[in-house]
Amino acid sequence: MPGCAFVDGQYVAPEDAKISIFDWGFLHSDATYDVAHVWQGKFFRLSDHIDRFFASMDRLRLDPGKTRDEVRAVMHECVRRSGLREAYVEVLCTRGLPAPGSRDPRSCTNRFMAFAIPFVWIADPARQARGIDLFISEVQRIAPASVDPRVKNYHWLDMVGALFQAYDRGAETAVLVDAAGHVTEGPGFNVFAWVDDELITPASGVLEGISRRTVIELARARGLPVREAPLPAADLRRADEVFLSSTGGGVIGISRVDGVPVGGRPAGEFGPVTKQLQAAYWGLHEDPRYVETVEYG
Amino acid sequence: MPGCAFVDGQYVAPEDAKISIFDWGFLHSDATYDVAHVWQGKFFRLSDHIDRFFASMDRLRLDPGKTRDEVRAVMHECVRRSGLREAYVEVLCTRGLPAPGSRDPRSCTNRFMAFAIPFVWIADPARQARGIDLFISEVQRIAPASVDPRVKNYHWLDMVGALFQAYDRGAETAVLVDAAGHVTEGPGFNVFAWVDDELITPASGVLEGISRRTVIELARARGLPVREAPLPAADLRRADEVFLSSTGGGVIGISRVDGVPVGGRPAGEFGPVTKQLQAAYWGLHEDPRYVETVEYG
Repeated sequence: MPGCAFVDGQYVAPEDAKISIFDWGFLHSDATYDVAHVWQGKFFRLSDHIDRFFASMDRLRLDPGKTRDEVRAVMHECVRRSGLREAYVEVLCTRGLPAPGSRDPRSCTNRFMAFAIPFVWIADPARQARGIDLFISEVQRIAPASVDPRVKNYHWLDMVGALFQAYDRGAETAVLVDAAGHVTEGPGFNVFAWVDDELITPASGVLEGISRRTVIELARARGLPVREAPLPAADLRRADEVFLSSTGGGVIGISRVDGVPVGGRPAGEFGPVTKQLQAAYWGLHEDPRYVETVEYG
Repeated sequence: MPGCAFVDGQYVAPEDAKISIFDWGFLHSDATYDVAHVWQGKFFRLSDHIDRFFASMDRLRLDPGKTRDEVRAVMHECVRRSGLREAYVEVLCTRGLPAPGSRDPRSCTNRFMAFAIPFVWIADPARQARGIDLFISEVQRIAPASVDPRVKNYHWLDMVGALFQAYDRGAETAVLVDAAGHVTEGPGFNVFAWVDDELITPASGVLEGISRRTVIELARARGLPVREAPLPAADLRRADEVFLSSTGGGVIGISRVDGVPVGGRPAGEFGPVTKQLQAAYWGLHEDPRYVETVEYG
């Protein structure tokens, strides 16, 4: 696999990027992470990702032993060494190894790691052109009363369970609900629905995605009514347009929800709001206020 | 660290036991595990742990590529090579690495691993003799509607959050609640309370611990009334005796709940039910129906 990782203070090839099986980042999934992307040699909204990463670490009482500038430099260096012009760049911090025999997380030395690998799409361009087939699972996203969803985390077994359900029904991905039956998020993405001439995205129980924020800002700038609010599953089913937002592809149209064509459109045809925001999302990648060039040398 | 691990089909020293940072067992905590213990050179209830491990893998659609007998043989061999007479023996299966660029868990090759390390107590014998200071956290254990608690899993951020709250209040460990405010479990243990002349352990939203089952069986065999039922936090606070059960120490007495001495007893004094079941638990380690000798050679 092309790419470059930063582990134990060294830049290494992805196949050499390993972690002790005793690290509590693995054995307790006691870790947080963030993912930024590089498109045409430029990071997109990198400062926002770094801000969220540090906020997540603060909430988990993790210390990466690096400043924001050092984290930024490691991310740039991973991309530079990889040579990748389109990359998926992850930073992460694990609790680390405890003192021998201890079960006390305060005895651990936290560990910072990073990697740049080829861009990983939520759905590849061919599938995007056709539109995604989405299943609304009854699996509940892990509740905020258990794990703060603003802390980007690796607790994905609920997502994986919903995904297998989706596959069993012939769908391509799934969105999870909360205890009230409202839509939350899916594996790696937030959801938007155009319902009753207004754009709705779930208000709570979801990661505050940077792409989600980008979509909200773009919609507002274009005078589209947009609201963070509870989104009942029934509203997602009757929405005229549905799309997801993700660092893994920006704005991606959903063609079917629970097997029913969204807005009655054939696969591969998307509504005006989806198309407008998708174009605006990629257009922002040319805006110097949002991008940061990698010096490949 | 003494011990022995089994990774990628090889027996290695613990410091060489590593996993790719790209394994979804790490990046999505998409994995399950089980832990048995060896005491005085003998495994305790090993078949029950292996049964649960295979049931967990079935529920997550994971395939370890090993039969039950092969898993058992690896566990024995890890202990034999480690030379440890008291050991904590973990087996685990991760989703593995996806096909390049894929987000589909069906594209992964699952990975089986194991390790034997020195016995890790929930609380060391000195702290056990004094009794544990337990805090009832308002953090909710991840709900069964999100992740099946019968599948032993690494989703511990709720536990870690509750643990830090406990430390902040001067307590030693924490128990989490469910959405109804009933007690569930804590990091690595189930809970029992002797309330109104009856032994209660939470019925749902908890791991079906092998030590928990052992305690229930021992209590029944002794004619003690025991029930799996909802356990309101208020009942835990007013209980005459409270103890936890864990592979990491069996039956361990709780001396204080939310800062108040359990049953009005001074630290280090435990009630008759706790003492009787603790003795019975360790007594069972001499019973050939429950143990399996390691051939150290």
